[in-house]
Amino acid sequence: MKIIGSSPDRVDAFDKVTGKAKYTSDLLPPHALEAKVLHSTIANGWVREFDLSEAWKVEGVVDIVTCFDVPDIQYPTAGHPWSNVPAKQDISDRKLLNTRVRCYSDDIAAVIAETELAAIEAVRKIKVVYEELPVILDVKESLANTAFPLHEERPDNIVNKTSYEIGDFEEAIKEKGLTRISGTYDCPVVSHCHIEPANSFAYKEAGKIVIVSGTQIPHLVRRMVGQALGVEWGKIRVIKPYLGGGFGNRQDALTEPLNAYLTTRVGGRPVRLAYTREETFECTRTRHAMTFDLTTYVRKDGSFAARELTVYSNQGGYASHGHALAANAANAFRMMYPVGAIRGKAITAYTNMPTAGAMRAYGIPQVAFALESHIDDISKETGLDPLLLRTKNMMRLGYVDGPTTITCHSTGLAECIEKGEEHLDYSRKRLAYADQSGPIRRGVGMAIFCYKTGVYPISLETSAVRMILNQDGSMQVQVGATEIGQGADTVWVMMTAETVGVTLDKVHLVSKQDTDVTPYDTGAYGSRQTYVSGMAVKKTAESMKRKILEYAALMTNKDPMDLDIVDNKIVRKNTDIVLITVKDVAMESCYSLTNSNHIAVEETHHCSDNTYAFGVCFTEIEVDIPLCQIKILDIINVHDSGRIINQTTARGQVHGGMSMGLGYGLYEYHKFDPKTGRMLNGNLLDYKLMTPLDTPTLHAAFVETDDPTGPYGNKSLGEPPTIPIAPAIRNAVLNATGVSINSNPLHPERLFDSFVEAGLIKQRSEHV
Amino acid sequence: MKIIGSSPDRVDAFDKVTGKAKYTSDLLPPHALEAKVLHSTIANGWVREFDLSEAWKVEGVVDIVTCFDVPDIQYPTAGHPWSNVPAKQDISDRKLLNTRVRCYSDDIAAVIAETELAAIEAVRKIKVVYEELPVILDVKESLANTAFPLHEERPDNIVNKTSYEIGDFEEAIKEKGLTRISGTYDCPVVSHCHIEPANSFAYKEAGKIVIVSGTQIPHLVRRMVGQALGVEWGKIRVIKPYLGGGFGNRQDALTEPLNAYLTTRVGGRPVRLAYTREETFECTRTRHAMTFDLTTYVRKDGSFAARELTVYSNQGGYASHGHALAANAANAFRMMYPVGAIRGKAITAYTNMPTAGAMRAYGIPQVAFALESHIDDISKETGLDPLLLRTKNMMRLGYVDGPTTITCHSTGLAECIEKGEEHLDYSRKRLAYADQSGPIRRGVGMAIFCYKTGVYPISLETSAVRMILNQDGSMQVQVGATEIGQGADTVWVMMTAETVGVTLDKVHLVSKQDTDVTPYDTGAYGSRQTYVSGMAVKKTAESMKRKILEYAALMTNKDPMDLDIVDNKIVRKNTDIVLITVKDVAMESCYSLTNSNHIAVEETHHCSDNTYAFGVCFTEIEVDIPLCQIKILDIINVHDSGRIINQTTARGQVHGGMSMGLGYGLYEYHKFDPKTGRMLNGNLLDYKLMTPLDTPTLHAAFVETDDPTGPYGNKSLGEPPTIPIAPAIRNAVLNATGVSINSNPLHPERLFDSFVEAGLIKQRSEHV
Repeated sequence: MKIIGSSPDRVDAFDKVTGKAKYTSDLLPPHALEAKVLHSTIANGWVREFDLSEAWKVEGVVDIVTCFDVPDIQYPTAGHPWSNVPAKQDISDRKLLNTRVRCYSDDIAAVIAETELAAIEAVRKIKVVYEELPVILDVKESLANTAFPLHEERPDNIVNKTSYEIGDFEEAIKEKGLTRISGTYDCPVVSHCHIEPANSFAYKEAGKIVIVSGTQIPHLVRRMVGQALGVEWGKIRVIKPYLGGGFGNRQDALTEPLNAYLTTRVGGRPVRLAYTREETFECTRTRHAMTFDLTTYVRKDGSFAARELTVYSNQGGYASHGHALAANAANAFRMMYPVGAIRGKAITAYTNMPTAGAMRAYGIPQVAFALESHIDDISKETGLDPLLLRTKNMMRLGYVDGPTTITCHSTGLAECIEKGEEHLDYSRKRLAYADQSGPIRRGVGMAIFCYKTGVYPISLETSAVRMILNQDGSMQVQVGATEIGQGADTVWVMMTAETVGVTLDKVHLVSKQDTDVTPYDTGAYGSRQTYVSGMAVKKTAESMKRKILEYAALMTNKDPMDLDIVDNKIVRKNTDIVLITVKDVAMESCYSLTNSNHIAVEETHHCSDNTYAFGVCFTEIEVDIPLCQIKILDIINVHDSGRIINQTTARGQVHGGMSMGLGYGLYEYHKFDPKTGRMLNGNLLDYKLMTPLDTPTLHAAFVETDDPTGPYGNKSLGEPPTIPIAPAIRNAVLNATGVSINSNPLHPERLFDSFVEAGLIKQRSEHV
Repeated sequence: MKIIGSSPDRVDAFDKVTGKAKYTSDLLPPHALEAKVLHSTIANGWVREFDLSEAWKVEGVVDIVTCFDVPDIQYPTAGHPWSNVPAKQDISDRKLLNTRVRCYSDDIAAVIAETELAAIEAVRKIKVVYEELPVILDVKESLANTAFPLHEERPDNIVNKTSYEIGDFEEAIKEKGLTRISGTYDCPVVSHCHIEPANSFAYKEAGKIVIVSGTQIPHLVRRMVGQALGVEWGKIRVIKPYLGGGFGNRQDALTEPLNAYLTTRVGGRPVRLAYTREETFECTRTRHAMTFDLTTYVRKDGSFAARELTVYSNQGGYASHGHALAANAANAFRMMYPVGAIRGKAITAYTNMPTAGAMRAYGIPQVAFALESHIDDISKETGLDPLLLRTKNMMRLGYVDGPTTITCHSTGLAECIEKGEEHLDYSRKRLAYADQSGPIRRGVGMAIFCYKTGVYPISLETSAVRMILNQDGSMQVQVGATEIGQGADTVWVMMTAETVGVTLDKVHLVSKQDTDVTPYDTGAYGSRQTYVSGMAVKKTAESMKRKILEYAALMTNKDPMDLDIVDNKIVRKNTDIVLITVKDVAMESCYSLTNSNHIAVEETHHCSDNTYAFGVCFTEIEVDIPLCQIKILDIINVHDSGRIINQTTARGQVHGGMSMGLGYGLYEYHKFDPKTGRMLNGNLLDYKLMTPLDTPTLHAAFVETDDPTGPYGNKSLGEPPTIPIAPAIRNAVLNATGVSINSNPLHPERLFDSFVEAGLIKQRSEHV
């Protein structure tokens, strides 16, 4: 391969660096109306009454709509492909505005005004009479206390629950000589913190409702808006320009359905609905808080005889992606160490927390924190080497997961571990750091993971691509899946050039999706872009090549079989003999007076396979026990994501994911007022996001395998880098201090509590 | 046919009536720069020097570019498809800004500024030193006076000349008993007067130069901009929103090439180049002034033994569409009355007039004025009935034009004449009005025409269309040809619904062309849209239907051959048995877990046939001889345009064309200062355009034939209605007054001169 594996610049680099790239707000038509949502100031209960009289007096108010006005339609928001099987469809459990309030800051009314200020002022002047219910933020409390279920249709507050058993667990644990290790691990609510807050604008044109929004999933949002408004899906049009980060938050319908409805209230005039940073924290989606109960029965040689997991997933007020994440976490528990008997149980329950949805790696950072912490806890209890525990039990080439049939078509995990170990000198240091004293101590930690690629066979994986040949021999590529900052456009250009046989400058990617003309694809999520949409790109590029060669064959009196395309030229296959150029074919096929036939191709790839990506994180840290601070001295992620398409952008993905993992491991969490359910740190001052100053030098390395099912040997890479960071840090703290901390993040307050409990810090009278 | 021939509302009606429809200026990004062009104040000569010092001092000026700065590339502007045969390519005879000035208001410099006012002020402050040459406005003078040819490459000032001879002319005129009638007829320069002046804006995005412009020919403009700037065509992108009328003016590259260049001068910032109404008159394109020398040898029975034409066409300063119009006029002379020996000669020459280009019916209104006036002059001289002269000699079914091979596949011309005659009671009135006296007299006149459909085989006729099935069973249609107000979008929706078998509401037309994603088509001209692009729509709709039925067959276990689509339902062919719906197929083909395949189709139709449309105008007028005024008492156009797709929009086309013909016959012409070449009436006050108050009740009728080569039996209709009006009025004046006026328009000054010459008005001393 000539182009795959090289490192050309991102195709969007120039426009993004120079500020030319267009985001949603850049496209807002002049004189658009501005909408603001009134969010509830209770977390549980009902809206009984509004007094709008003062709000209507605000100059510039055009319309006010409340939860009593909106269509009586419940709709889903999860960015999953539609299923024609009703039982597999996402849960429809919210209206455009809700009378039944299920979380603090629920959407209950909206104002449309000539200016943003007028809209804000009018929202403030709306008076609401509520009937309140007690606030339930905890999953187990929600399961126990079902007097007032959040959703009538779910009287037990359970979104869904699932379980599996591989082998005979009860039989397996009867084996002699097993050591049983148990632990409970907790992961908090965190936010995606993409730079561009949730926002959209909508208007009517040519009989359609048009929504412009930086969504990851334009075709799915089109369908969900149609559902929410009760409008035929073909009468909705979604346009997706560049966006400032998604990370799964934009894999939900966010502002779009309400925004679409609002424009219909004002005769189709453009209406913008732009959330603030605070609203983005409180009113979009979060990463699920999960609690894991883990038990492992380990033999003396370190092999696992039986393992058991129960995960409780906190859904918040509305179903969104719902139980899919807990199920994904429970599956990964099984897949990572697929030995012995395994049983898993997952339960997802509604609470009055903000609604949790998709976030980078979809439940796996949670289970990896629990599982990889648990492995080091086993090591601590048994004295077995943590690397040995992992390498002995981890997934191997050829593994077929029973429940899902997902097969390990390639693995470089062992080499990833070797590479990380070598970089950090982990084993030697682990022993050296085992028995320190003093206030400042060092430690090393590591964690591994596996990650399936895309969502097959759990859900539909289909992708369509179109290519259009220009007269100069260049071509446009339209991909239904979306560039969301991850560099997808660049790899699609590389794939197209590689497969057609043209140079990179001959491939123009149409970045903006427009559901009216963009081929169907379910969108950007599940690290599916290079694997699933990449297959569609490859298939379409092969079609393009075939069409070019067929026309070239007519022009040259050759059989297409004997022709090839190399560097924009049509050559006699396997030779250097240049016959004509791609441009010659393009000019003739367009302008021929006897056989004009515009070369354009459109192909669907229905993906029906999957494979696992792998990786490790190794880190060395310094813990300042009195100050309760962790300093990262060294950190490396090593990934097996199959063949790397673009070395530079792949490294960028790893760096970004590591940064997100560091925040997850060290600082980030939503803090709630337990009485009201209100988020207390919903802004970028109080919510501690990693900044460049907090970030150590990030090392990224790859072990390149050649996956037989990936279009170019590639596997998932977008989400994985974020997975192993938090447990690696936690395990390094264990190595440094001997203290197992089972909740993340390891922020100073938590370190303080843990070190006090472990006796490393003396508790000082009444100040604690 | 269920839908073809009905009269649904225009698909763009709601948005256009409510002001929602987006035109170029509506899409202008905020903070766009504004450009203004400095036009020459001489009509012939050279720019020798600029003094820009005062211009640069104007606040807000960003850049000034002169004819000494632009790329040294000559390019063409005519909206003809590219030809791979160099000899058939359009003449490249202008630069983005010209040092050699060839007409008054030639483009010689441009200013880019932060505001339009600053740009205007700076343009005014540019000082120019010219070297002047004498101004030549007349074709015959230009041919005689070649001391300083306008273009070095054409030392004789001839753009092109052609001739033909059918039969042996010199032999034919030797026949005994022939009467020879000769006449010279003149047509003036007129303007299209579309409501929206020429304008565009341009910027750089994703490495491409993007031009937004209400052009009729987005794909051709892309190519011409590439030529003008020396940039690969694939790196140009043209977006065409709704536009306020074209009529052929927008079948040229107008502001686009210079606008594209200007944005490259300012790092790709958006730059608007919006012409004023005055610039649109002087600096875009006009209808060619033509002079015709006609001679006919007629037998006693009224049959033509021989006919001869010479046409001189005044090109103005630049080639644009050049000789194609004079050639088209000369061809129509032959085709209309294809009997006896015929010879024609056409010559097109450069002059210092504004550049003439395409305008509705492309040379045919000129030749029809000459020819149909000439027929009535023959009647006047021979006493033969003018209807007899026409019906005896006119084209008949099955006629094959020798030089072009264009065949008469259908004709309703005789029925058109009958219908018009019946409406007006023409023959009776003509005799009754033959011998009037008194100051106010009535007259009737008529004229006929034939019009080929599209441009095959003179030039390439190719068109591509794409259709995309939505999940609700509706579909988008992307057509490369353009809606320019004529109603094309509406007929494409009707054609699609008819052919696929769905209802009209299931077809969504994507009106905006974007050369990055819109299938290739040469654009809107030559009345080719329903005939040529219509064939592509039909072909693509048949593909769409086939794909739907193939998928439906899989779902229903039937052979696709046995299925049909009726009213959005899949039925057992030739029965009422409904199996499933198109929506069922759309949902399953998209979301199937075993066979997901998005249904989208894209087809090219390479048109390789042509046919003739026909029509007549009959009118009754009243001439006030002392006041030199004509009042239209009654006027009807009867058209054979094959099968009428949409009765209402077809009628609208006829009304619009008649209005344009009335202006051509009665009022409109460019008035020039003969010394400077400056247009004296270049605004809508002094240039007398027909207004609603000037317009009589317009009658439109159709004789529907079923043309075997039209996709739905249809033939051209867009341009024809404008053709026969001027000669019909002129012939009615002849009937009323006995005076043959051989120049149009018949404005009061011309009537005065003619009536004085004829002795109807007594010349009064020195006032004349």
